[in-house]
Amino acid sequence: MLSHQTHEVEPVYFDDIEPGAEIVSHEVAIEREAIIAFAAAWDPLPVHLDDDAARAAGFDGITASGTHLLAIKHRLLYDFGFEHTVVASFGFDEIRFRAPARPGDKVRVKLRWESKRLSDSRPGVGIVRHYCELLREDGRALLSLYDTILIRRRPDPTAD
Amino acid sequence: MLSHQTHEVEPVYFDDIEPGAEIVSHEVAIEREAIIAFAAAWDPLPVHLDDDAARAAGFDGITASGTHLLAIKHRLLYDFGFEHTVVASFGFDEIRFRAPARPGDKVRVKLRWESKRLSDSRPGVGIVRHYCELLREDGRALLSLYDTILIRRRPDPTAD
Repeated sequence: MLSHQTHEVEPVYFDDIEPGAEIVSHEVAIEREAIIAFAAAWDPLPVHLDDDAARAAGFDGITASGTHLLAIKHRLLYDFGFEHTVVASFGFDEIRFRAPARPGDKVRVKLRWESKRLSDSRPGVGIVRHYCELLREDGRALLSLYDTILIRRRPDPTAD
Repeated sequence: MLSHQTHEVEPVYFDDIEPGAEIVSHEVAIEREAIIAFAAAWDPLPVHLDDDAARAAGFDGITASGTHLLAIKHRLLYDFGFEHTVVASFGFDEIRFRAPARPGDKVRVKLRWESKRLSDSRPGVGIVRHYCELLREDGRALLSLYDTILIRRRPDPTAD
């Protein structure tokens, strides 16, 4: 599993977001045992479970399930304190599995803010689209997607 | 976890696919313990872990993580024998979380074939796009997405 360190998180609010800016999570290693456990539960393809099968398919050994990468990506988003500020996700677009993830790969999430606007119908929240990549240590993207989220404005300290 | 019954699977090949046709998986129940275990590992939002927090957010109790629904969807695809015929996924598009999943919900996957064409560059395989829904017992979609896959042609029994 991932090591779920407790990070001191400064939540990201709508007001903090500048289109074009990027934020990056901490890094976690994808362990061999975690690849196999996730695949056994959710995606028991031989290339995720057995080195020989993976080599026969042209890889250097087992690779992580794409769904596993989505789960790792999601866990790393907690670095940004979204659990305090994100109301909902409208959904993901253009999910691409761009390179295989191997045991021992160290990965982090990088978000690039694409656009922001206040909600017409809901006061206190805005709609933000970001481009999200799961990056390997050497900078190569393993996974990328767009996410459109409903996120709170920073509370006004002068309000009642 | 899901019950991973062994199903007698007749793999779906490129040749079997008729755009407009639909195929449906078996049904699995989403257990409360599984919702909590998945969320604790990958998406520890209070609404996935704690009934009081979920009620405060307007739900009837805990709801499953969207990433958990993606994992369940993926596991159910094995009903179609894709592990024997699908070479790769180009990626998912328009992933939408359309309704909350609650403990005890029974779900299945429905695929609707959207389009098919032979690969220009790779003999023996074709490119197929499908619309995939995770449906509750009452027919309501909890999750939907498009997936574009590279899938094998049925082996020619008269070939060497």
